[in-house]
Amino acid sequence: MEQPAAVVALSGGLDSCVTAAIAAQTGPLALLHVTYGQRTARRERQAFDEIANFYNTAQSRRLVADIAYLARIGGSSLTDTNIELPAGAPGRPEGVVPSSYVPFRNTHILSIAVSWAEVIGATQVFIGAVKQDTPGYPDCQPAYFEAFQKLADAGTKPGTAIRIETPVIHMSKADIVKKGTELGAPLHLTWSCYRSENAACGKCDSCLLRLRAFRAAGIPDPVEYDVG
Amino acid sequence: MEQPAAVVALSGGLDSCVTAAIAAQTGPLALLHVTYGQRTARRERQAFDEIANFYNTAQSRRLVADIAYLARIGGSSLTDTNIELPAGAPGRPEGVVPSSYVPFRNTHILSIAVSWAEVIGATQVFIGAVKQDTPGYPDCQPAYFEAFQKLADAGTKPGTAIRIETPVIHMSKADIVKKGTELGAPLHLTWSCYRSENAACGKCDSCLLRLRAFRAAGIPDPVEYDVG
Repeated sequence: MEQPAAVVALSGGLDSCVTAAIAAQTGPLALLHVTYGQRTARRERQAFDEIANFYNTAQSRRLVADIAYLARIGGSSLTDTNIELPAGAPGRPEGVVPSSYVPFRNTHILSIAVSWAEVIGATQVFIGAVKQDTPGYPDCQPAYFEAFQKLADAGTKPGTAIRIETPVIHMSKADIVKKGTELGAPLHLTWSCYRSENAACGKCDSCLLRLRAFRAAGIPDPVEYDVG
Repeated sequence: MEQPAAVVALSGGLDSCVTAAIAAQTGPLALLHVTYGQRTARRERQAFDEIANFYNTAQSRRLVADIAYLARIGGSSLTDTNIELPAGAPGRPEGVVPSSYVPFRNTHILSIAVSWAEVIGATQVFIGAVKQDTPGYPDCQPAYFEAFQKLADAGTKPGTAIRIETPVIHMSKADIVKKGTELGAPLHLTWSCYRSENAACGKCDSCLLRLRAFRAAGIPDPVEYDVG
């Protein structure tokens, strides 16, 4: 089997799908999906599988990691149904951490990606973090990824050089839609809604951000919304 | 319930037990155990439970996290039975990474500890890494933990300040035995053997290091060895 150039963290959402499309330009992919008891886990897994099929990724180059302990730890409305999901407030003030923040989540995802990359000989780890629409998530900021790069350099075997790549971090969501369209990314297979697993709700933070992005890009959103 | 001062990563081995004894001087503990398909997982879990009982840690302050994906990722003789365990070579040359190295393992453990600490309001995370007996493990070196501290500072909510503590990192194994004895740590409940789940084998790297340490400390090792 061809050695993959890149491990991509692929949630199944818009940002990670476009990140995969960018990574695919560098060589064959290894795709990582994590599940942690989030509300729409089943639907996100389906999106992962369909995007992996689209990129002809072998089964041995797909890793679905269960990090259910994150749900047991709690502290987030994404995993704890006792905490209300934020509705329709994507423009929250800078510095306020939304209830959908999962504490230190990206560290878990990146740690798995780096361990896997080290074993299979991949030299890059891609993650689709976006600074602009997660102003309050500390683990989505460039400084966080710079710190993680130093950790990966210090914590892997001598001779291992794994680059952490965040190609969409400075893009607007609209630019991500345009970039994905330009690269032929399968945006119709992505899933963004935090609430529903059938038609997207169109009302949660994540849906609102997505809808605005497609509107701003002047491109129709190919997924179905619940307009009831 | 009293707010715990510290989350301690407690494998059930000697180093983590003495680390817990040191952390217990700062206040109540929250104890984290990870299981990842390692050969002696059942026995290590037993040691964790017994040490947690010894410190009267409430069930809600014990977290057992399954990170089985590490075994699926492979690459280590601790989790992959196709890779031979190193036998009796604790004095391996500096810089050579032994086959029992689990790629980037401590990052997974620390990530869980930091997420949990953030949610329960603990201000310290303790881990019993020891530089001397893991010369080849990149993620056991002081520079690695300094890098992780910066990551934790960058990746947690503003206002969160979680200190990563490695109180035994510069100690010799004999000093760890002495320190544990001095603090009344339950060394009789610990488990170090990489091979056996009944009487310790006395032959693997980990047993040899432990036996030497007790001998050098002039203290009898309270666990049972297979002398057959």
